[in-house]
Amino acid sequence: MTRQELTAQIRARKSFLCVGLDTDLKKIPQHLLTEEDPIFAFNKAIIDATAPWCVSYKPNLAFYESAGIKGMLAFEKTVKYLNESYPDHFIIADAKRGDIGNTSKMYARTFFEEYDVDSLTVAPYMGNDSVQPFLEYEGKWVILLALTSNKGSFSFQHLPLRDAEGELFEEVLRVSSTWGNDSNMMYVVGATQGEEFKKVRKIVPNHFLLVPGIGAQGGSLEEVVKYGMIDDCGLIVNSSRAIIYASAGRDFAQAAADAAKAVQQQMAAFL
Amino acid sequence: MTRQELTAQIRARKSFLCVGLDTDLKKIPQHLLTEEDPIFAFNKAIIDATAPWCVSYKPNLAFYESAGIKGMLAFEKTVKYLNESYPDHFIIADAKRGDIGNTSKMYARTFFEEYDVDSLTVAPYMGNDSVQPFLEYEGKWVILLALTSNKGSFSFQHLPLRDAEGELFEEVLRVSSTWGNDSNMMYVVGATQGEEFKKVRKIVPNHFLLVPGIGAQGGSLEEVVKYGMIDDCGLIVNSSRAIIYASAGRDFAQAAADAAKAVQQQMAAFL
Repeated sequence: MTRQELTAQIRARKSFLCVGLDTDLKKIPQHLLTEEDPIFAFNKAIIDATAPWCVSYKPNLAFYESAGIKGMLAFEKTVKYLNESYPDHFIIADAKRGDIGNTSKMYARTFFEEYDVDSLTVAPYMGNDSVQPFLEYEGKWVILLALTSNKGSFSFQHLPLRDAEGELFEEVLRVSSTWGNDSNMMYVVGATQGEEFKKVRKIVPNHFLLVPGIGAQGGSLEEVVKYGMIDDCGLIVNSSRAIIYASAGRDFAQAAADAAKAVQQQMAAFL
Repeated sequence: MTRQELTAQIRARKSFLCVGLDTDLKKIPQHLLTEEDPIFAFNKAIIDATAPWCVSYKPNLAFYESAGIKGMLAFEKTVKYLNESYPDHFIIADAKRGDIGNTSKMYARTFFEEYDVDSLTVAPYMGNDSVQPFLEYEGKWVILLALTSNKGSFSFQHLPLRDAEGELFEEVLRVSSTWGNDSNMMYVVGATQGEEFKKVRKIVPNHFLLVPGIGAQGGSLEEVVKYGMIDDCGLIVNSSRAIIYASAGRDFAQAAADAAKAVQQQMAAFL
């Protein structure tokens, strides 16, 4: 998906919401467990209910891998269903991969050719040649971890540097933004990081940011918009648990739609 | 596997070799492609041939994921075969995972409970709570990326820090070594990093190091030993392509055994 196609969707739906498909067999409504593929049944219902209110879906690979082969089949079916039934929604495989070039090439092939997702989250620690193979696919995106939403982001991401300005995450932004461009790279910046968005926007004024951390993790949509939004929006804000587990009963899909719609309406006011 | 069990194996086999199972359908001998599960058939032959000369196997998840569901089934079968037939060999799932705590917990469950590998490679960028869930399993190990073998290691890992001594990888070692101990954490340090091993050993004198980068990537075993070896060895040196693809013909298993034995004999001289 190109940047123009993505921003057209954002305008059309008045939404920059991404629904995170962190589907966990222990948390989905128990009546679904009798389905042949409970994970896919849950995802399909959530997608059908929330599609009008969001522009993106983000299945988190950890949840699918933890269910073994069945989980990976459910992931594959979910992506296929999205590509066929909702081709205008931007698919993010949240996998946080990254390895030596030879190996990253294999991951790129898997996610961009086999599964055909629009984008993949990638970890920056292994540097240039670990990211490059993902940038060689037309219309596909790398979403690089810059400043994450968790407490552990303070272990290393905020380390002040000696020969470069600011902290590690700023150098990650500065250096990695030369590897691709604002039409094939985005950055993960956690909603919990507040005013740090100002620093991010100084370095990457035009890149899209994928923002996790509102909802269950406590980040504020208002702050994210205040410091992160640009002319063509430049934001995809994710919410997972607060939407997909809004109800554990038979009304789970409707409850998810209501939760997604509530976020979308806040977003519409900002657009 | 405990540290004592691992070091007992190193002494018994006079080897600290890990064979990397980077199994690629495009590179394995073509006569295997008629097998029901060519990836597993290849791995089983390689394992049976090389087991006397090594102490560890490292399947790289990228290669299995890229073959889709069939690939993941082959990974599962390979780990099961190792656990049943070669329980004394240390299994490293080379997956370079790492996510927010809630998600890392899922990865830990997958790799340590479902697949039952001994250890998992983990990326440090997301910090403490992304690594902690992996440390909660008795007898299991985190192998954290510190200084990798690829060129991209110069993008960020060598950045000099302002308020801490040395470079980023040194702070990663210093900080993360307080999260676990030298019986549940190891570090990835590339063989291509030469004298940097001295700096690593200053900070983590007793941790095991997993060393990729000899063989196809050009690192020197002699240098690794000179700067990295400690009393109970403290090294697991990986070779993937140079061993498993030593021959593309029907003699591939024997050729792999010969290549592994050649490395083992160099290692025996150092022990």
